[in-house]
Amino acid sequence: MAAAIEFYFDFSSPYGYLAAQRIEEVVGEYEREILWKPFLLGAVFKITGVKPALDIPMKGDYARLDLARSARLYDTPFVLPETFPFMSVAACRATYWLNESDPEAARELIEALYDTAFGEGQSIREPAEVAAVAEELGHDPDAVLAAVQEPRIKDLLRREVEAAIAKGVFGSPYIIVDDEPFWGFDRLDDVALWLEKGGW
Amino acid sequence: MAAAIEFYFDFSSPYGYLAAQRIEEVVGEYEREILWKPFLLGAVFKITGVKPALDIPMKGDYARLDLARSARLYDTPFVLPETFPFMSVAACRATYWLNESDPEAARELIEALYDTAFGEGQSIREPAEVAAVAEELGHDPDAVLAAVQEPRIKDLLRREVEAAIAKGVFGSPYIIVDDEPFWGFDRLDDVALWLEKGGW
Repeated sequence: MAAAIEFYFDFSSPYGYLAAQRIEEVVGEYEREILWKPFLLGAVFKITGVKPALDIPMKGDYARLDLARSARLYDTPFVLPETFPFMSVAACRATYWLNESDPEAARELIEALYDTAFGEGQSIREPAEVAAVAEELGHDPDAVLAAVQEPRIKDLLRREVEAAIAKGVFGSPYIIVDDEPFWGFDRLDDVALWLEKGGW
Repeated sequence: MAAAIEFYFDFSSPYGYLAAQRIEEVVGEYEREILWKPFLLGAVFKITGVKPALDIPMKGDYARLDLARSARLYDTPFVLPETFPFMSVAACRATYWLNESDPEAARELIEALYDTAFGEGQSIREPAEVAAVAEELGHDPDAVLAAVQEPRIKDLLRREVEAAIAKGVFGSPYIIVDDEPFWGFDRLDDVALWLEKGGW
């Protein structure tokens, strides 16, 4: 079987959310495993000096319009949470913790967290909020709360973020197919074309 | 006839160059006039605080790869000029000057200037270099050199840049269709879809 597709995203990234809604459909027919890799865009911004798009004069206004328009095009529910951007450390740690024992459950948690944040506009910043989302999926909320404070899990996320940066991941979403990187929600069609043509 | 499509670009923008190669094909079947509007991205960057993508750590490496890949996909010759980014004031002024008397000739000059810069990797920064490109199209190089120093033409460009900023143009390429803005080379397909659907 061909190599897995790496899908990097920040839970606080609205374009990451939109990409998460589409990626399985986009790569579906190519029978590639998708590795869902949340990371912390804030750590990257310290290196690049870039600010979140929505905070930039002129660009921020455009991004608000474009996000709503992109969501309409794909019939995706979309609300910008009241506190935005938000810290996504707890969401990341909970996901990687769950991923150790059950990758499919981690995948479901990602979807539920993203839906809560950008489908419903609710906060997923606080550990208790992340635990509540996990509880709805049948997980023990106290185990989630313990996990996001566990030094081993903190270190696991730190290493994941470092590995993402080492691979050049500077934005969200960021997709790597057979060592070929694609940045941005608007490049999903290029990912599909790359898979179809086997590169160009 | 439906309203013209406004196509904003900086002569120093490689994604603007790529978009210039595709835009007529993309909007061709919809019988819309295209208004070719060079502007100065540097003036916008002073407002947004954004740096050119190629100068940003990590993002710059990706942009180099993506530009070459995008050019390959559309069989477009592409070379990054040795001095990059470069001032494009002379190119802009010459274009707006020519546009006053002959919009079609201005359109041809834009194409020739972009081909010189990103098709051949030659400098178009200096007035003499712009005049040389114009001369190959049959224009009087001394008239070009005089025009780019003319206070009236300087003022004309200044007003064009201000008008672009007032419309929210913060990047290159930037396309406005019936008041709907689209930023980026990777959104040309969205422009085509917008024209086809009449919006969404």
